[in-house]
Amino acid sequence: MSMVHPQMKSLVELQQLIQKKIDGYCRVNGNNTLFEPINYLIQLPGKRMRPALCLMSANLFTDELEPIVYPAFALEVFHNFTLMHDDIMDNSPLRRGMPTVHEKWNTHKAILSGDAMMIQSYQLLIKTNTEHLAKLLPLFSKTALEVCQGQQLDMDFEHQPVVSAEEYLEMIRLKTSVLLGCAMQMGGLLTDQDEIVQAQLYQIGLYLGLSFQLKDDYLDAFGESTKVGKRIGNDILAHKKTFMMLRLHEHMNLVQPHAVEDIYATINDENELIHAIKNLYIEKGVDQEAQNLIQRYYDHALSLFEAIDIDSSRKKQLLELMHNLHHREH
Amino acid sequence: MSMVHPQMKSLVELQQLIQKKIDGYCRVNGNNTLFEPINYLIQLPGKRMRPALCLMSANLFTDELEPIVYPAFALEVFHNFTLMHDDIMDNSPLRRGMPTVHEKWNTHKAILSGDAMMIQSYQLLIKTNTEHLAKLLPLFSKTALEVCQGQQLDMDFEHQPVVSAEEYLEMIRLKTSVLLGCAMQMGGLLTDQDEIVQAQLYQIGLYLGLSFQLKDDYLDAFGESTKVGKRIGNDILAHKKTFMMLRLHEHMNLVQPHAVEDIYATINDENELIHAIKNLYIEKGVDQEAQNLIQRYYDHALSLFEAIDIDSSRKKQLLELMHNLHHREH
Repeated sequence: MSMVHPQMKSLVELQQLIQKKIDGYCRVNGNNTLFEPINYLIQLPGKRMRPALCLMSANLFTDELEPIVYPAFALEVFHNFTLMHDDIMDNSPLRRGMPTVHEKWNTHKAILSGDAMMIQSYQLLIKTNTEHLAKLLPLFSKTALEVCQGQQLDMDFEHQPVVSAEEYLEMIRLKTSVLLGCAMQMGGLLTDQDEIVQAQLYQIGLYLGLSFQLKDDYLDAFGESTKVGKRIGNDILAHKKTFMMLRLHEHMNLVQPHAVEDIYATINDENELIHAIKNLYIEKGVDQEAQNLIQRYYDHALSLFEAIDIDSSRKKQLLELMHNLHHREH
Repeated sequence: MSMVHPQMKSLVELQQLIQKKIDGYCRVNGNNTLFEPINYLIQLPGKRMRPALCLMSANLFTDELEPIVYPAFALEVFHNFTLMHDDIMDNSPLRRGMPTVHEKWNTHKAILSGDAMMIQSYQLLIKTNTEHLAKLLPLFSKTALEVCQGQQLDMDFEHQPVVSAEEYLEMIRLKTSVLLGCAMQMGGLLTDQDEIVQAQLYQIGLYLGLSFQLKDDYLDAFGESTKVGKRIGNDILAHKKTFMMLRLHEHMNLVQPHAVEDIYATINDENELIHAIKNLYIEKGVDQEAQNLIQRYYDHALSLFEAIDIDSSRKKQLLELMHNLHHREH
């Protein structure tokens, strides 16, 4: 490994590397009725953030990414399995602007193809050096189970009259963030970093994930529709239990317990409704709370990253990705 | 390992051992909304045939079953995962005489708890000696994917106007038999048998499974209802594409292409319908074909088992189980 000319891969280069693996995977799957929906879903354009983070994490320590590509790709396949099943449970008609698998085919197909996809994620995961399996598999499995627990909480929340902002943060930790933590840690594990470094990497991914998800929620209310690329205020219209909505309820409960419900009951015009709730967010400082938390999580990830003891030339790509994720407007 | 006093565990002893693991597993799962349906399903009384076969297979070569129990139990958890999801896809209201998970809770719960269960099967699988993982995981994953492919074929057959008996045998090979093959091979793999012995064990399980499933179909038409414990002729009433039904169609197509459909269209009384189809089975010798095939598969498994070069005292329990499975009347 040369420190003089480290071969640091950019996000775009890694995305190309991953796309090659996706194409190969789809070719092997073939046109079988079980695998068709799998190929369809995974070929929808995506940022491939999980495998990219895993590869960038490994790239901090090594130029030799070949043994990392398959387990990194396993994260993408696992993520897509969760999308296929979550879309059934959330009754989502669209995924990345295209019909979801259960809409394009049917629910039974989406169940079974999703199952196959999860098994395939394990098949890809174990395509690596044997000596890592004993650590890699418990990490991946623990994370996978937590993702299910996060989805369970998300579904539970729909029927739960009162959800605290704290419970919401725990839900997004499980549903979204742990998989990013796992991705980052895998990069360390597969390059034989010690457990302290692995734990740091995990935390970096975890806090990036928390920050990322909260930013998503924030942009849904306060982004610019031309930049976000979709209508603003969908979460508000759905009265979705996001961090800001839950914090708003917590603020209002002390003074006007039914004020938010009253707004939903009385305002029929969608734009007016979005406007009224956003005004309340601003009035109660909930938008600022969200921004502060996004910043705090990001800063925490950043300071953990800075503490990792490697040449700064190796950190450039990941730092740039973190910066771009944090400052994105869509 | 003593050959003088080998400690061969009986089926009942192994079932007790597995039940202990089930109880411990359910305790760890706890009362969480994600795990409640898992605990419910796995506690429904079952024969625990897959872990039992795995343990008996290992017990052929060793008295030390402790390192085998968790991976053996993984097979039971995986099997129950497939039951939870298959019951959704087959719209089954009952499983082992009790409401299915999607009936007792709902479909979304059955999807997500099933997903969690599959991940848990991997968590249990890897609770064994690390040096076996590199062989164990590909075997288990390949098998798991084949089981999905079998379920896919089964669903495809429902909408397929013509299915050959050969295709049916391939479907039950994938849906049922490969997991028994995997169970038997795992017993050999985890006791460090060479690949030839492992392949023999796999084939024994595979042919036992084929024989077992065909016997199930046979008993559904020709068993005694008091012994089988349920009404006879359910498959016939559902016009289910079983081996006998498909062979009947193949026989009739040559001479009276629509004769079977005509019977279904004209006979309304259920008992008369069952009687008419069973008479046709007998007339065309399809019942005998099924019995011959059950015997052929069983004999093949038996001769492979006899060829395994160990003291006959170690073979007693598995031989008894095979004999009992073959001669069962329910």
